[in-house]
Amino acid sequence: MRILIVNDDGIHAPGLEALAEELSRFAEITVAAPLQGHSGASGAITINTILQVEKNYKNGAFFGYAVHGTPVDCVKLALCNLLPQKPDYLFSGINLGANVSVNVNYSGTVAAAWEGALAGITSCAVSLSTSALENDFTPAAAMAAKWLEIMENSALPKGALYNLNVPRLPLGEIKGFAPACLAKASFAIEYEQRASPRGENYYWLRGAELPGNAVNEEDSDIDLLRRGYVSVTPLFFDEPTDRSVLNILQKSELFKYV
Amino acid sequence: MRILIVNDDGIHAPGLEALAEELSRFAEITVAAPLQGHSGASGAITINTILQVEKNYKNGAFFGYAVHGTPVDCVKLALCNLLPQKPDYLFSGINLGANVSVNVNYSGTVAAAWEGALAGITSCAVSLSTSALENDFTPAAAMAAKWLEIMENSALPKGALYNLNVPRLPLGEIKGFAPACLAKASFAIEYEQRASPRGENYYWLRGAELPGNAVNEEDSDIDLLRRGYVSVTPLFFDEPTDRSVLNILQKSELFKYV
Repeated sequence: MRILIVNDDGIHAPGLEALAEELSRFAEITVAAPLQGHSGASGAITINTILQVEKNYKNGAFFGYAVHGTPVDCVKLALCNLLPQKPDYLFSGINLGANVSVNVNYSGTVAAAWEGALAGITSCAVSLSTSALENDFTPAAAMAAKWLEIMENSALPKGALYNLNVPRLPLGEIKGFAPACLAKASFAIEYEQRASPRGENYYWLRGAELPGNAVNEEDSDIDLLRRGYVSVTPLFFDEPTDRSVLNILQKSELFKYV
Repeated sequence: MRILIVNDDGIHAPGLEALAEELSRFAEITVAAPLQGHSGASGAITINTILQVEKNYKNGAFFGYAVHGTPVDCVKLALCNLLPQKPDYLFSGINLGANVSVNVNYSGTVAAAWEGALAGITSCAVSLSTSALENDFTPAAAMAAKWLEIMENSALPKGALYNLNVPRLPLGEIKGFAPACLAKASFAIEYEQRASPRGENYYWLRGAELPGNAVNEEDSDIDLLRRGYVSVTPLFFDEPTDRSVLNILQKSELFKYV
C-alpha cells in the first residue's frame, strides 16, 4: 500500500511528522509538503514562477520533499514527477486547527485532498481542532490510521474525499467516528484595523476556529466535534456547473436574439 | 447601482482598467485589486500576516484600492471595511486568459466572484480567451456591460455566480451569449523539469489555456467559446457536503461500534 502525505502547515510542522510516523507503520509513504506554512492557501497553484524542491531530512534520515510552493503544487508535482506510481491514498495534515463549515473553502489542507480526489485517489484531510499552539498530535494520528484501516476493510466509496476533524482529547476519550455534514454558517468575517507607527491603516483578519454563527445541527461537523467524535464529512469535488441555474438560462428568451 | 470590481491579475492589469472604465458608465464602481498579480490564487486568503492597502491613482484621479493580498482578500476586505454598503454586483476580471473547464478550480478571478456569491451578491467572473500578451479588452468590457444590462432587465436568478468567457474577436464578430456547462476534462498536468546552473532540478508548470483533453460537447464553455460565443456558466457555490456519500456512511455498520 502506498500513501502520499501532504499538508499546508509546511514540512516542519509537528502534525505532519506525527501523521507520517503513524502511517509509515502500515504503508510505504512519500511526504511532499510546502517548505513554508501555507494556511489559507485554498487551491492556489504556482503558475508564473518555478517550483524548486529540496530533500528534507529528520534525525539523519530522508523524511520527504520540501516544495517551494503551495499544498496543491505539492500534490500535482508529486503525482507528475516525484512518485514512481499513483498512490492508493492521499492524506493531508494533520492540520493545526479544525477545518469545518465554510472554512473548508479556504483550507490548504482540504484543497490538497481535493486535488488528490480530482486525480482519482481516495483522499483524506485530517485536522486537529485546537486553538492551542502546543499540541499532542498522536491521538489524531492514531485516528487517521484507524480510518485508513476502515477504508481498507470496508465497502466505503473509493476515490472519495473525506474531511476528518479530530477533537483535542486523549485517545481514550475520543468517542469514535461520526458521519457529518458541514455546519451551515453564514458569511461573517471581521478585520481588525490598526495604525502603523507611520499612521497608515492596516488590517488583521479575525476569525474563530469554529465559526460562531454556525447553525446547530445534530449531524454537523462542529456539533459532533464538540461532542467528542471525529467528524467525517464527504466532500463534493465534481465539476461545479450549477445545472439548475443553467436550465433557467437555457430556457430563457434572452438568449434567443444573440 | 453599485458594483465592486476585483481581479487576480493585479491593479495594474489592462483588463481591470477596461472593465472599470466601461462599468463606470452605468454604475458607481469601487475597485479593490491585488497590488501584484495572483494568477492561480484560487480562494487563498491571508491569515498569518497583515493586509496593507494603498490608494491607487491613474491619470491623476483615484482609481481604486491596491491590497497587498489575494483576490479573495480584496473581496473580504472591501465588503467588511472599504465599502460603505453592500454592492449590487461584483465583477471580477477581465482576466488575461480563459477560465474554463477544470481550470476554474485554480482561478483567482473565479474565486473572487465565488466569494462575492457566498456573501449573497450576484457575481460575475469575466475572462478573455487569449494566449497573446497584448490584447484589446474593450470588446470583452462591452460584453460585460451588456451582461449587466441583461441581469438588470431580466428575471435571471439573483445571487448567482456567472462565469463568462469572451472570445478574442472584434465586438462585431462576437455571436452573443450562450449558456454553457464547464467542459469535462480529465486531470492532466505536466511539469517541465530543468536544471539550474548549479545542477539542481526545478520545475515549470505547463498547461494549455484550453485543456487539450476536454470532452467535446455542444454546450460546453470551450466549444461555445471556439464558435465565437461568450460562454455563460453558472457555478455551484453552496456548501459542498457530498450527500450521496454521506448517506452511505450514515447507513454503514462501521460506525455502530464507535
